[in-house]
Amino acid sequence: MKKPLILVTNDDSIVAPGIRFLISVMKEIGDVIVVAPDSPQSAMGHAITINNTLHIDKVNLDKDIEHEYSCSGTPVDCVKMAVHEILKRKPDLCVSGINHGSNSSINVIYSGTMSAAVEAGIEGIPAIGFSHLDYGWGTDFEPTKEYIKKITLEVLEHGLPEGVVLNVNFPKTEEEPIKGIQVCRQAKAAWVEKFDKRTNPQGKEYYWLTGEFVNLDKGEDTDEWALKNGYVSVVPVQFDLTAYHAIQTLNSWNLK
Amino acid sequence: MKKPLILVTNDDSIVAPGIRFLISVMKEIGDVIVVAPDSPQSAMGHAITINNTLHIDKVNLDKDIEHEYSCSGTPVDCVKMAVHEILKRKPDLCVSGINHGSNSSINVIYSGTMSAAVEAGIEGIPAIGFSHLDYGWGTDFEPTKEYIKKITLEVLEHGLPEGVVLNVNFPKTEEEPIKGIQVCRQAKAAWVEKFDKRTNPQGKEYYWLTGEFVNLDKGEDTDEWALKNGYVSVVPVQFDLTAYHAIQTLNSWNLK
Repeated sequence: MKKPLILVTNDDSIVAPGIRFLISVMKEIGDVIVVAPDSPQSAMGHAITINNTLHIDKVNLDKDIEHEYSCSGTPVDCVKMAVHEILKRKPDLCVSGINHGSNSSINVIYSGTMSAAVEAGIEGIPAIGFSHLDYGWGTDFEPTKEYIKKITLEVLEHGLPEGVVLNVNFPKTEEEPIKGIQVCRQAKAAWVEKFDKRTNPQGKEYYWLTGEFVNLDKGEDTDEWALKNGYVSVVPVQFDLTAYHAIQTLNSWNLK
Repeated sequence: MKKPLILVTNDDSIVAPGIRFLISVMKEIGDVIVVAPDSPQSAMGHAITINNTLHIDKVNLDKDIEHEYSCSGTPVDCVKMAVHEILKRKPDLCVSGINHGSNSSINVIYSGTMSAAVEAGIEGIPAIGFSHLDYGWGTDFEPTKEYIKKITLEVLEHGLPEGVVLNVNFPKTEEEPIKGIQVCRQAKAAWVEKFDKRTNPQGKEYYWLTGEFVNLDKGEDTDEWALKNGYVSVVPVQFDLTAYHAIQTLNSWNLK
């Protein structure tokens, strides 16, 4: 059987331990090409670079991989660049991550990792974003390996429904081993922001965005519940954002 | 009756003609506060600024508006800053735009304008993003005025379903007047990217992202159809990205 062609990207930059681990796992499954940001691009959402130039550099961080590139753009730029400029054929799969930090619940919207996966989905490529709740660069990713392989092989075998990509998050594992996998919905949650206001040496005020994550969802079918209870969460994510249930409501308004 | 408090933002920057026009319309409806980017932030998606500082400056571009601020951040940063740092109470409405250029169909995902509206929605504020297919800064926005007022007043009267914001796009109007409003779903579409490869004065290659928009959807209930046929498109947009229809499929896989 021909080996699948797997595009690997992330948002923490091409040198982050998370992507290096993901590359090592993907090498056991297929032929790997890496196109990832040359600097951290966390929280870039679905940003693309239209008012600036883009640069790519061929790098060789892994001697087994012939095609490895660092890119000056966002995670979404990396996917576009890989598919439309670097690769001769469409990859069979795109994996993004492992992100250093959670992309569960509402975080999916801010996430560069997940936006890369969504972009691949828009391009018709089966795609999975992987993230780990433990954001440290010293995180032990070894316990995630069997789950990454299992999910990836299932996606390669079955494909994904049209217009759907997967958002996979791993729980913290210092205290107990991973219990298994749960297919979930996105929990309802929000960030309650606090701005840390400071004064620069010239006397001008500036701010750092900080905030507290608040889970507003008591459901036991959510990603937040699964992660809190030691499971890997798998949320199918769509990029048709239409709120179909609201169309009838809006049609009852006086808009004509 | 107390006047509604309306937060106005955009992604083309605080001096763009689109936001100045939107401000002028909102002044007829409520008390206006403006917090908008100090430089263009198009295609920033749902990016937020976490690895850099944020600055705000009180400006006075409109003598009628007491609270007008330019912000160094993304459109989403502007909304967070307005709600959590500048405003004493939650606004009754957030409007974003008028964007210079389309945010219909898949463009909703890349759009800073719509991400600002979505962020307001996450914060529980009814929100509308307005965009005009004619991206020129010389666009005549006057024909959009009655529609902006109608949609805004309906939202203020009825509120919006929980977890839903509106994506409103205006058709080009040089050739014929606007025909009315259509409530639509997001058309299935994609950008076929082409990278314009150049060489810098030092001999190093670089790229500009260009591309062609391709509507893959023949439906007559889509935003693309409405806009092509001279209607204002109104798409209800949700930020619960769960593909509920795919959960059963995934549960049938060998993931346990």
